[in-house]
Amino acid sequence: MQFSKRLDNVETSAIRELFKLLGKPGIISFAGGFPDSAMFDIEGIKAASSQALNEQPGPSLQYGATEGYDPFREQLSEFMSSKGISGVGPHQLIVTTGSQQALDLVGKTLLEPGDVVLVEAPTFLATIQCFRLYGPTVLGVPIDKHGVLVDVLEQMIIKHRPKVIYLVPSFGNPSGALTSLERRLKILELCVKFKTIVIEDDPYSDLYFTPNPPPDSLLALSPQVPGSRDWLVYCGSLSKVLSPGLRLGWMVGHPEFLSRATMCKQFGDAHTSTFAQATAAFYLKSGRMPATLEKVRSVYAQRARVMEECLKQEMGHSIKFDAPLGGLFFWAKLTGLMPDGSPHLNTALDGAVLAKKAIEHKVAFVPGAPFFASNVDHQTLRLSFATADEQRIKDGIKRLSQAILEA
Amino acid sequence: MQFSKRLDNVETSAIRELFKLLGKPGIISFAGGFPDSAMFDIEGIKAASSQALNEQPGPSLQYGATEGYDPFREQLSEFMSSKGISGVGPHQLIVTTGSQQALDLVGKTLLEPGDVVLVEAPTFLATIQCFRLYGPTVLGVPIDKHGVLVDVLEQMIIKHRPKVIYLVPSFGNPSGALTSLERRLKILELCVKFKTIVIEDDPYSDLYFTPNPPPDSLLALSPQVPGSRDWLVYCGSLSKVLSPGLRLGWMVGHPEFLSRATMCKQFGDAHTSTFAQATAAFYLKSGRMPATLEKVRSVYAQRARVMEECLKQEMGHSIKFDAPLGGLFFWAKLTGLMPDGSPHLNTALDGAVLAKKAIEHKVAFVPGAPFFASNVDHQTLRLSFATADEQRIKDGIKRLSQAILEA
Repeated sequence: MQFSKRLDNVETSAIRELFKLLGKPGIISFAGGFPDSAMFDIEGIKAASSQALNEQPGPSLQYGATEGYDPFREQLSEFMSSKGISGVGPHQLIVTTGSQQALDLVGKTLLEPGDVVLVEAPTFLATIQCFRLYGPTVLGVPIDKHGVLVDVLEQMIIKHRPKVIYLVPSFGNPSGALTSLERRLKILELCVKFKTIVIEDDPYSDLYFTPNPPPDSLLALSPQVPGSRDWLVYCGSLSKVLSPGLRLGWMVGHPEFLSRATMCKQFGDAHTSTFAQATAAFYLKSGRMPATLEKVRSVYAQRARVMEECLKQEMGHSIKFDAPLGGLFFWAKLTGLMPDGSPHLNTALDGAVLAKKAIEHKVAFVPGAPFFASNVDHQTLRLSFATADEQRIKDGIKRLSQAILEA
Repeated sequence: MQFSKRLDNVETSAIRELFKLLGKPGIISFAGGFPDSAMFDIEGIKAASSQALNEQPGPSLQYGATEGYDPFREQLSEFMSSKGISGVGPHQLIVTTGSQQALDLVGKTLLEPGDVVLVEAPTFLATIQCFRLYGPTVLGVPIDKHGVLVDVLEQMIIKHRPKVIYLVPSFGNPSGALTSLERRLKILELCVKFKTIVIEDDPYSDLYFTPNPPPDSLLALSPQVPGSRDWLVYCGSLSKVLSPGLRLGWMVGHPEFLSRATMCKQFGDAHTSTFAQATAAFYLKSGRMPATLEKVRSVYAQRARVMEECLKQEMGHSIKFDAPLGGLFFWAKLTGLMPDGSPHLNTALDGAVLAKKAIEHKVAFVPGAPFFASNVDHQTLRLSFATADEQRIKDGIKRLSQAILEA
């Protein structure tokens, strides 16, 4: 059987191999990129799905519009308002099967061989792979804890004339970085100046650990930079805040773009599960979301604090990191030192080598290399604190420090 | 905003324009391609979704494997057994977000510019469009009521060397045709002889109106033709028999193909809703499916009988058709005559012209032209009997006969 050449652009993820090992008994995993199942508001979802089947059985189980189920779109419009994104009506967004599908629709609608896409370095690895299946060159732009370096971004725009810039401004996976307000405004100016499409992927902004939410999304800020709204595509998701299993995301963008993306979606999966959409619509309508978010934030914030302490205490000089202000991840860099500051004797030590040794010590994380579209930094690691409770975080990081001593 | 060139291969469907008119009050619609909501086993689905959230809340709401939720795959394996497809274990199939996604994954995994795909003429129009987005040339092979003309198919294989042949052997949309056992075996021989991939799309085979089910699927027959199983991809769906809103389909194929398709799916929507999968798993496990199928079959069979009678009585000589033995559709051809056999005076009369006139008479159907990938026959129409009760079928066909008199 001969497969299409577009598959040659994507390697089977090294991470998949790692995930096979996670089933081993006794492993403490910081490898996942998912929320804690214990955070799900099962009672609320149960009530919402009953309501959907009792009050709207036909529409919940029948084919629906490709753009999405209207009562859900209305709730999403209101949910965005509550996040400071006003003026996006129900018909100015389309529902997607998770935000992963939004990325796929961006690729299908916009990208082809010869195009260049700029992404943060590091960025969400499934975005890199998803886009590459459509043939463009994907290049990474360096970031720090305040987000993408906008001066470098501008230089790279001038040099590469990208069709699309993909950013996760709030608590990105894997970096945890939070793009500053100043840089957000600069990004909006750049997209207008260079007529470049900016994809804002925003699944984590509700998961902030500070008393106040992070700076407004690019979409919410766009009225401050005339013309920028036309170049923005915003991708939202309920996966990190309500439930990934519902597979519900959405997309806001220029009407012409949304109409093309809708056509692609029609031939991609016809529409997103109306059963899931109706359930989520009743859930959002129930008013339980603010309390759910409150709880999720406080639990993750506490786990992040514990992980920060443990990393400092156990890993000492062996890694550098900026503690995240939200999201699910610590992003760390190996320094080449032992925890006590003496040089590490293994000059081949990198994230992948350490991950293997860590598995022997029954702790797992994801090496950072696959998160780079270009200029790979192999000395990096991603640690998720979302799914382990405090004791397991403590035990896991101790194991990790053992692993680094022996690696 | 500049869109990718692949979008140039697909025209916005004329049918979408028609569907906008369907909202008009008082219209009797034979235009839909969907099952009747009144057939949904709401109580059974309600019980199944409660069970999913009570007994498996974590897995039902969390991220899941791209290949599908194992308990659902197990149930699908058993469901196939009950349809005569034995020997397909749970790990020899992958779950898709409706069978529309299976088609999209076929396209993404296999097709590229320069390839040729053969399809039945007429065939499911969303397949034509879905495939075209990946760049191949799609050509139609003529059919009759016993399915694709296998001799012509062989000639076209020799001439065009297609990479993929797409068939709906049982009660295809829109033709309603039922491929004979003899032709099914010949198709299997052809795929081995010419090393050509055959996609068997099978959403309708459970909807038969005869005492006995239709001939076995190509997949079930494949052991009779050594080597044919390697070239087959089977697409199943719960949309027409349980609920389209769950968006659940599945795909069986060569392990190498499934592994590539799974990778594409990973970057397409990560996985299909685990909530929907868990619900359907409990539903299938509940044992209610056979009774549901029994009911659906008898209701649709009765509606098909009524439509056949009405068409004969009201439309007389103006159309030709073969009454379907299953499925959801009548496929009819305009003869150029009036119901009484006199010549129709409008020489420009075709499916599209009649559809417009029909809307004036408050009855809707889909003109047949968009269902042809090549050699379009404009004198055709598709009439669905699935969603109208007997009285509405009678009234609707009367209106249609008025429309043809005035068209």
